[in-house]
Amino acid sequence: MSIDVASIKALTFDVFGTVVDWRSSLIREGEALGRAKGLKVSWTAFADAWRGLYQPMLEQVRSGAMPWTKLDDLHRMALDQLLVRFGVTGLTEAEIDHLNRAWHRLDPWPDAVPGLVRLKRKFILTTLSNGNVALLVDMAKRAGLPWDAILGAEVARHYKPQPAAYLTTAELLGLVPAQCVLVAAHNGDLAAAAALGFRTAFVHRRTEHGPTQTTDLRPTRDWDFVAEDFIDLAEKLGC
Amino acid sequence: MSIDVASIKALTFDVFGTVVDWRSSLIREGEALGRAKGLKVSWTAFADAWRGLYQPMLEQVRSGAMPWTKLDDLHRMALDQLLVRFGVTGLTEAEIDHLNRAWHRLDPWPDAVPGLVRLKRKFILTTLSNGNVALLVDMAKRAGLPWDAILGAEVARHYKPQPAAYLTTAELLGLVPAQCVLVAAHNGDLAAAAALGFRTAFVHRRTEHGPTQTTDLRPTRDWDFVAEDFIDLAEKLGC
Repeated sequence: MSIDVASIKALTFDVFGTVVDWRSSLIREGEALGRAKGLKVSWTAFADAWRGLYQPMLEQVRSGAMPWTKLDDLHRMALDQLLVRFGVTGLTEAEIDHLNRAWHRLDPWPDAVPGLVRLKRKFILTTLSNGNVALLVDMAKRAGLPWDAILGAEVARHYKPQPAAYLTTAELLGLVPAQCVLVAAHNGDLAAAAALGFRTAFVHRRTEHGPTQTTDLRPTRDWDFVAEDFIDLAEKLGC
Repeated sequence: MSIDVASIKALTFDVFGTVVDWRSSLIREGEALGRAKGLKVSWTAFADAWRGLYQPMLEQVRSGAMPWTKLDDLHRMALDQLLVRFGVTGLTEAEIDHLNRAWHRLDPWPDAVPGLVRLKRKFILTTLSNGNVALLVDMAKRAGLPWDAILGAEVARHYKPQPAAYLTTAELLGLVPAQCVLVAAHNGDLAAAAALGFRTAFVHRRTEHGPTQTTDLRPTRDWDFVAEDFIDLAEKLGC
């Protein structure tokens, strides 16, 4: 049964991987730093290792082993580990902080901004991301992402896929979950949202993890919408 | 001593009265409803009475007499009282709800959008309002207010002038108060923010309360910036 598009009021977006290409952007930032400082580091391996520490870090907060900690600070804890592991030395505190804020400077996928501009005419557009507000605000200003509001984990003080991250976002919008679509390139994120009554849109991002990606290459369930990219999503939602 | 503008990262805005002309907008909405339903009501008196119940309602939440309640719901409680007081009968629940959401459809002062567009080039722009997120998102979409984020009381779960409303806003932006300016047409709001280390900008709104306004006609202290309107503020901030 297809969804009545008129019942949808808000599109809520996963960001890392779905809206922005974190991997290429981190490699770009690392390589620029490496050239400037004469570092011999595989920044591709570094980027993958950094993202590899993401879920374990979040899990420490979700499990209660660590009190609420915003993503900027989790990224920094992971970065401090990785600088040792990759033998990177000689960086000043300002340089390490700048590298940590590479996550504030991620580039959008090429279709993201034009797609969001079209979708914004008809729907409320918000983040529903594990990124903290400052990170997402900086990213949006730099990339031109036209969000109506910056919502998600930090405001809810719960990381996805914990239910409060999704439910607080809908509640702050004054909406019930069935009026909200989660847009994500990750089947697991969509499954968590769908279990709470959110509508779902899967967007293909086949190179989020590089050319040999093996995860989330296709929708694993019959999500409400499946789109090639945000332009295709705009078409499918009649924008 | 003047402030170094380069130290300012974010402008955080009071909304009701400072960005939007709530009084004229409520009168417009009331008169339209009155014509449609044949109601004999002074909508000017109605608008002033509705706003008159604002601080008493907020105070019930601030004092703890009432649990956290979003502004849409406080507006509705006040509206239900006023419909009785003004003898308005015969409205359906949908019509009452639509009238309550007049606060989502307030018009900006004429300088607000062009001023914000200029200010946005240089600063992060957020709400720091007692309005709830859904109200402010709807208002922004309708009026074209180019916020980078919707922050303030609901996210902090504290109403201004309680310190948490201001401090949570700065914290979510990853900033210290001295990097944030509160922009407001109300000396009391600015005093509360200044006590916490915020920078301050007073904007004149001499007819917020109508042609016979007696409050906030001028700055009562030497605020960091004093502007005629948002265009003048943009000039003074070098935008």
